[in-house]
Amino acid sequence: MVRAGIVGISGYSGKVVFELLLKHSQARVTYVCANNTEGRLDQIWPQFKGRTDLVCAKFSVDKACELCDIIFLALPHTESMRVVPALLKKGKKVIDLSADYRLEDQKVYEKWYGHTHEDSKNLENSVYGLPELYREKIKKATLLANPGCYPTAAILGLAPLVATNHKAIQSMIIDAKSGVSGAGKKVVAELLFGQVDENFKAYKVLKHQHTPEINQYLSRLGERQVEVTFVAHLLPIFQGILETIYVQLNGSLSFEDITKIYQKFYKTETFVRMMDSGVQPEVKNVAGTNFCDIGLVLSEDKKTLVIVSVIDNLVKGAAGQAVQNFNIMNGFKETESLL
Amino acid sequence: MVRAGIVGISGYSGKVVFELLLKHSQARVTYVCANNTEGRLDQIWPQFKGRTDLVCAKFSVDKACELCDIIFLALPHTESMRVVPALLKKGKKVIDLSADYRLEDQKVYEKWYGHTHEDSKNLENSVYGLPELYREKIKKATLLANPGCYPTAAILGLAPLVATNHKAIQSMIIDAKSGVSGAGKKVVAELLFGQVDENFKAYKVLKHQHTPEINQYLSRLGERQVEVTFVAHLLPIFQGILETIYVQLNGSLSFEDITKIYQKFYKTETFVRMMDSGVQPEVKNVAGTNFCDIGLVLSEDKKTLVIVSVIDNLVKGAAGQAVQNFNIMNGFKETESLL
Amino acid sequence: MVRAGIVGISGYSGKVVFELLLKHSQARVTYVCANNTEGRLDQIWPQFKGRTDLVCAKFSVDKACELCDIIFLALPHTESMRVVPALLKKGKKVIDLSADYRLEDQKVYEKWYGHTHEDSKNLENSVYGLPELYREKIKKATLLANPGCYPTAAILGLAPLVATNHKAIQSMIIDAKSGVSGAGKKVVAELLFGQVDENFKAYKVLKHQHTPEINQYLSRLGERQVEVTFVAHLLPIFQGILETIYVQLNGSLSFEDITKIYQKFYKTETFVRMMDSGVQPEVKNVAGTNFCDIGLVLSEDKKTLVIVSVIDNLVKGAAGQAVQNFNIMNGFKETESLL
Amino acid sequence: MVRAGIVGISGYSGKVVFELLLKHSQARVTYVCANNTEGRLDQIWPQFKGRTDLVCAKFSVDKACELCDIIFLALPHTESMRVVPALLKKGKKVIDLSADYRLEDQKVYEKWYGHTHEDSKNLENSVYGLPELYREKIKKATLLANPGCYPTAAILGLAPLVATNHKAIQSMIIDAKSGVSGAGKKVVAELLFGQVDENFKAYKVLKHQHTPEINQYLSRLGERQVEVTFVAHLLPIFQGILETIYVQLNGSLSFEDITKIYQKFYKTETFVRMMDSGVQPEVKNVAGTNFCDIGLVLSEDKKTLVIVSVIDNLVKGAAGQAVQNFNIMNGFKETESLL
Repeated sequence: MVRAGIVGISGYSGKVVFELLLKHSQARVTYVCANNTEGRLDQIWPQFKGRTDLVCAKFSVDKACELCDIIFLALPHTESMRVVPALLKKGKKVIDLSADYRLEDQKVYEKWYGHTHEDSKNLENSVYGLPELYREKIKKATLLANPGCYPTAAILGLAPLVATNHKAIQSMIIDAKSGVSGAGKKVVAELLFGQVDENFKAYKVLKHQHTPEINQYLSRLGERQVEVTFVAHLLPIFQGILETIYVQLNGSLSFEDITKIYQKFYKTETFVRMMDSGVQPEVKNVAGTNFCDIGLVLSEDKKTLVIVSVIDNLVKGAAGQAVQNFNIMNGFKETESLL
Repeated sequence: MVRAGIVGISGYSGKVVFELLLKHSQARVTYVCANNTEGRLDQIWPQFKGRTDLVCAKFSVDKACELCDIIFLALPHTESMRVVPALLKKGKKVIDLSADYRLEDQKVYEKWYGHTHEDSKNLENSVYGLPELYREKIKKATLLANPGCYPTAAILGLAPLVATNHKAIQSMIIDAKSGVSGAGKKVVAELLFGQVDENFKAYKVLKHQHTPEINQYLSRLGERQVEVTFVAHLLPIFQGILETIYVQLNGSLSFEDITKIYQKFYKTETFVRMMDSGVQPEVKNVAGTNFCDIGLVLSEDKKTLVIVSVIDNLVKGAAGQAVQNFNIMNGFKETESLL
Repeated sequence: MVRAGIVGISGYSGKVVFELLLKHSQARVTYVCANNTEGRLDQIWPQFKGRTDLVCAKFSVDKACELCDIIFLALPHTESMRVVPALLKKGKKVIDLSADYRLEDQKVYEKWYGHTHEDSKNLENSVYGLPELYREKIKKATLLANPGCYPTAAILGLAPLVATNHKAIQSMIIDAKSGVSGAGKKVVAELLFGQVDENFKAYKVLKHQHTPEINQYLSRLGERQVEVTFVAHLLPIFQGILETIYVQLNGSLSFEDITKIYQKFYKTETFVRMMDSGVQPEVKNVAGTNFCDIGLVLSEDKKTLVIVSVIDNLVKGAAGQAVQNFNIMNGFKETESLL
Repeated sequence: MVRAGIVGISGYSGKVVFELLLKHSQARVTYVCANNTEGRLDQIWPQFKGRTDLVCAKFSVDKACELCDIIFLALPHTESMRVVPALLKKGKKVIDLSADYRLEDQKVYEKWYGHTHEDSKNLENSVYGLPELYREKIKKATLLANPGCYPTAAILGLAPLVATNHKAIQSMIIDAKSGVSGAGKKVVAELLFGQVDENFKAYKVLKHQHTPEINQYLSRLGERQVEVTFVAHLLPIFQGILETIYVQLNGSLSFEDITKIYQKFYKTETFVRMMDSGVQPEVKNVAGTNFCDIGLVLSEDKKTLVIVSVIDNLVKGAAGQAVQNFNIMNGFKETESLL
């Protein structure tokens, strides 16, 4: 039985990691903490009443390391890098759900996140936790950088094409829409029900901090510098992301070509589902699951490919993928507690 | 042209007063302020872009009195009573949307609101602004206490029966459900989209501060001490209140009797609509309007009457009723800007 | 491995039974059908893509009995009683989610459902599947009548008091609110998004067909004829029921007395959770789970008890309870696939 | 007092035309009909209870022409063209909210709508009712083709740039999101609350029938053949459209250039509001109004312009614009009953 800790249990991601591990046959959560507050976990999250006796402790590296074999960090960016070095030093594995270890270039991090990176040393050892691309590396990871929600849907939606036909691609535009849980549980006016309900808006237009993460991994896949256009929007739903991706192509690929590329790329992947031709993926079909559903439509002139990629931002876009990585890192069945 | 001021324009009620007065043929808003912040009104409420040049001023009694003939106070309770005396002293009329002048007994206020009443002197001069019951007094009011949202729906739903047949009534239970705007624009965790969406709950069970307001005016109407059972719930909608009221009767009244009582009571009232027999009122039918829709169902044994009373909490339950009172106090057509 | 069939898989209840059994360690769904249509299950419910190869068959008693050990009927009322006799005759166990076998008195059924009962013969053999009350009978049931959603929340909310103190009770009023899935997947105007969103209304006031079910089982418990007042409302959410129950008491019981009665009654029940004093249950805390959360508030004069009872109408109010009964009937762990 | 008729009052657009005209100082609705059903208007739309005595008549050209000076057709496409010829022949003015008279090329209509055009004769006399572009023609129109909802937001968002700098434009992609009322009140499974709530999806990808309408008017403005990429999505809200438009530019225009172009183009337009730099338009700010709010963001390399254009699909995208056209056609103040 692997003993897992969750630091940041009061946020949505931390909560879902806990929820998933409750069903895990080979792991048990032995330590939780949140904002250094102390208190019963079932008071922070009343849905767990009767299902746990855990009490939030004040965060302590020693205590965490004593009680856990592996630690999930469900913290805001900048907070993770302040605790990761100590945890690694004690020989613990870390699954970091923040953005702190996703960008290999410290300067890019500092530009987009507006903070100095305080642990550049561990940056190069971190493994990006997108199992469909990096499963082998994940098996050996000690510091796992769990992907961002928008990048997960974007990269999974584009990877097959970029990896195999990057020369056919002229531009990529990602119009992304996310439910409010993507913003976390921050108590701010713009996340009030009165602001979100019956509303819809774009935000951080061309300035979203997930953009360089998408660019970095697509560039790696395409073996050339890639720059996507990315715009985020806020949906009046709790969980789910849908990204409509417009790829300008040179017209050399047919719909059948593209379909085959995707089918082949994800042939053995449980959590990526290609829609049948003519069927559009929907947020409702992946909500609460670790699936990424992808639909493809090609324009008649073969010059515009519309890829629709859908995930649950809290599951495949955060906690579910973290547990998937946890399973891989521990040699468990990859789908354990996720199906 | 009557010059109106709105103190507390950043809240929902103040905003809707402004919205309604924009359409008013005989009034103009000449002064607005909010939390003592200064700034363009169309930045606080972007929907007014292009429709107003008003700038929020720091609140000043002198300025308000210089620029306005009448002042709407859309403030939280306790804040109104701190400015009312000065405004009245300057000879201005005040329409107070807070709870500060609704309860005649200062001790009841202090028990339910948990604050000392600092202006008991003006309490006795205030007029309760429920036009369907107190129109004549409202005409002469200088300090108008605009009713609470829950009490408006409750009193309108019960008034005909209590006023005419209080002896037939054995008990009254009010199960009230409100959209989130009833709680104002407070930035608190329990009003986040993530907490309200797809959720429903009761709150302040048997302890809601609107209870004594309902009791006071029903007691006055029934000419005896009345105590209702009142429970509030939070609906995942923005605006609207529905109250399901269970009246235990002695069985002496038939459905026809009761229907006639209500029809007669509201015969000349524009803003109260009795549903046809068998038709249930719905929040959607009154949203954005100043109407109160009422439906009646009597049990076969004539011992239980179910009254469903529906209003828009921001309109008939707050700003709309305030404008209705404004119209009455100024001798304007009562429905001006409300139809 | 028990082989289960689901008749009526295209409705919400049938779908959730399937979803729950997908995780079951000792059962497998081997047969599904819906409206006599044929087609892949993952086309009817795209969220199951990649998780099942099942194909909807045209319903056939022979086929169903050949392929299954036990059959869930997730059918509208009147449709169940047309297939139950044949299934029982073939020696199969049946879990019926419709209302057809819940009311012991055929005349009551005919009055409230407006249809002749065509299988009164099996009525007396059916077992009412509320495990917290009838676990021992359920173990031996061959025809299980799965409770209605409203009755589940109502009976669990009232059972401890009625079973132990029925003489202290003067009246019971149930103000019930349900998400739209309670109405099933009927394609009717009143269930359109445009009608439900931002709306709220009462329906079937004092005429809801679940009323006699509540009366029957409370009468049995209280050992005297009980008649509740019941009003249903439609919430703009997908799943969840909250019932606010007003009990008029004779004032003989203290809050401590009542609390102890409930604590004791549900002491060993996994799926009923009593809230701490002062805490209100919320729909969000039980959504997607088989829990029933119950909160209690007593008025100062001890004459009015407010019970708030919350369930997920699709889980504890339908499919989850059906699986709980399935587990009991098969001697499995009662919580299997439900925690 | 102009006498107006509304054919198709049971749909959302017809209802909003009626609602707006209730407030009109120089017009009165004298005739309504819907699906050839007869019945009181306040039973079809209960929110009008107490506000109208109108009764839906069986549609009759003679009756309509006898009672009205001008007729709004709020009908599905193909139904309008079956009544327009008769109404025009009787000398009546017609405002058609369907798509039947928007496309000048009958073949394009037939390709995208899949129906033969039965009134090609009147096609060339119709005037496209986008006042910001065609006000002068609208003044003299007898057959007014009211624009589609998506095209209104798209064309207003793009017109200034296309009209002045079409050579700088390389491609235009429109990612459009609409509330459900855009689909009308059709009783179909995909518009059920259970399908729309907490969901989001793309539909008719690259095949939406509004595409040729956008292309036609942008081509006219740019004086060359324009083809946009258009994808529609369904938002879980009732009313409102937001379109995120990606324009690939040649890099010759600065943000200041573009801002000036838009400011100048809409300088005298009441209903188009340019957002301040850095401010994003939101659906909530235009809901229930006739405004179109437009925000602009240019990428650092000046090659990608993101235009966000927001309207209320039922108001500026349908009924409000129809009333705006009605005002222009009758020589009334253009904003009458719209502000």
